[in-house]
Amino acid sequence: SGLVLVKNPHLDLMEEDILYHLDLGTKTHNLPAMFGDIKFVCVGGSPNRMRAFAQFMHRELGLAGDGEDVADICAGSDRYAMYRAGPVLSISHGMGIPSISIMLHELIKLLHHAKCRDVTIIRIGTSGGLGIEAGSVVITDTAVDSSFQPRFEQVVLGDVVVRSTELDKDLAEELLACSREISDFPTLIGHTMCTYDFYEGQGRLDGALCSFSSEKKLEYLRRAYDAGVRNIEMESTAFAALCGLCGLKGESYRFHLL
Amino acid sequence: SGLVLVKNPHLDLMEEDILYHLDLGTKTHNLPAMFGDIKFVCVGGSPNRMRAFAQFMHRELGLAGDGEDVADICAGSDRYAMYRAGPVLSISHGMGIPSISIMLHELIKLLHHAKCRDVTIIRIGTSGGLGIEAGSVVITDTAVDSSFQPRFEQVVLGDVVVRSTELDKDLAEELLACSREISDFPTLIGHTMCTYDFYEGQGRLDGALCSFSSEKKLEYLRRAYDAGVRNIEMESTAFAALCGLCGLKGESYRFHLL
Repeated sequence: SGLVLVKNPHLDLMEEDILYHLDLGTKTHNLPAMFGDIKFVCVGGSPNRMRAFAQFMHRELGLAGDGEDVADICAGSDRYAMYRAGPVLSISHGMGIPSISIMLHELIKLLHHAKCRDVTIIRIGTSGGLGIEAGSVVITDTAVDSSFQPRFEQVVLGDVVVRSTELDKDLAEELLACSREISDFPTLIGHTMCTYDFYEGQGRLDGALCSFSSEKKLEYLRRAYDAGVRNIEMESTAFAALCGLCGLKGESYRFHLL
Repeated sequence: SGLVLVKNPHLDLMEEDILYHLDLGTKTHNLPAMFGDIKFVCVGGSPNRMRAFAQFMHRELGLAGDGEDVADICAGSDRYAMYRAGPVLSISHGMGIPSISIMLHELIKLLHHAKCRDVTIIRIGTSGGLGIEAGSVVITDTAVDSSFQPRFEQVVLGDVVVRSTELDKDLAEELLACSREISDFPTLIGHTMCTYDFYEGQGRLDGALCSFSSEKKLEYLRRAYDAGVRNIEMESTAFAALCGLCGLKGESYRFHLL
């Protein structure tokens, strides 16, 4: 049917669903009227960048007005920012798995309540590249954890639940085909490794509070490269797992940080 | 000496340390002049709340002016917000362990570069209470993980490093003594449980994308209570571990969410 699946029978029994961190709700807002025609959702870490992205989409889609005064739909909350340009929603998610996980829970329930159909969700942002040319774009086929495994472990009431982190292969190929029309930067498909920390988790010798040897760092990054990892960031496994769980066509599309 | 310890020999060999997510650096800013006299750092999730807290401290300390126009020291970055009122720094950290971990790395290096002495760092914010009166304040003695263990596991280059999550007991008692002068709300000392997610991690039956039984939830929360847990949030283990690693007197002081 193309609808978003939410595998929680409690949800439809609730009189009201408050999407607390988005400052939206089923009683306070007419979600089908506000969001029913959304077809694409783009998510990224920084609120300023996601506003700039909505302004860019506004111009690209040739919508009326210059789009400069695009309004933050979540203005009543300082947790996340949300903008729309035609059928495209642009939302910030902060940094790290817990932060994107809260936003995705509320976003997916929003799409469910709004009865959206055939939604594609794409994560865009910067990342650290691994053995690739600076300025490259990495389109993620599979998100992997720090052991290079395609899995996301979520602790639910003390038990570890393991979920798959495969992303939509057709969508990845479609994005790669689009990239061929743009000659400004190299684009490739590869695995994206997701860590729980920016400094120690990614072996930043200079920035960390503890020390580790540069030999060990090189050896680890070489193993990651051999396992197919082409870039490193902090949200992709949770993104892939939650999109997969709810039947959303998801893709993680990362710019290699210069 | 009261100085902040940073156990990374690379740090002092660097020509410049850029605290990227705070938009500060050792070459672009005179950190000892800006921050050398800081004695207290208060951290919390929301940027708006941390501005309101700095305004409150400004009034409480009887500083000149009304404090309403307090400036965001990290205005060049939209990742975190930072304000100061006299010797008190007030900083937001977003939601979840990875987000607070990035901020604490850069904050601790800032305190190191600024040659601050005898700094006390306190995390303030809302949390879910467990078997306590609504509106209570929980002062954390020990942060525990979702297995109720006093530990924080950080993956460093693929290896799990386990760190202690004990907080400063004297500081906890001092805060409890202060609370006796305020009769408005009950205050207690207890363990704080830290999870990686707000919905599934904390067993929110109504808000999660998957389902689980209410019996299992009750049984889990009962075990948590029996292990000494009095509230649940998403940052305390990383906070306790990183403060402990760097010799900072740390305390997590949470308001139970009403």
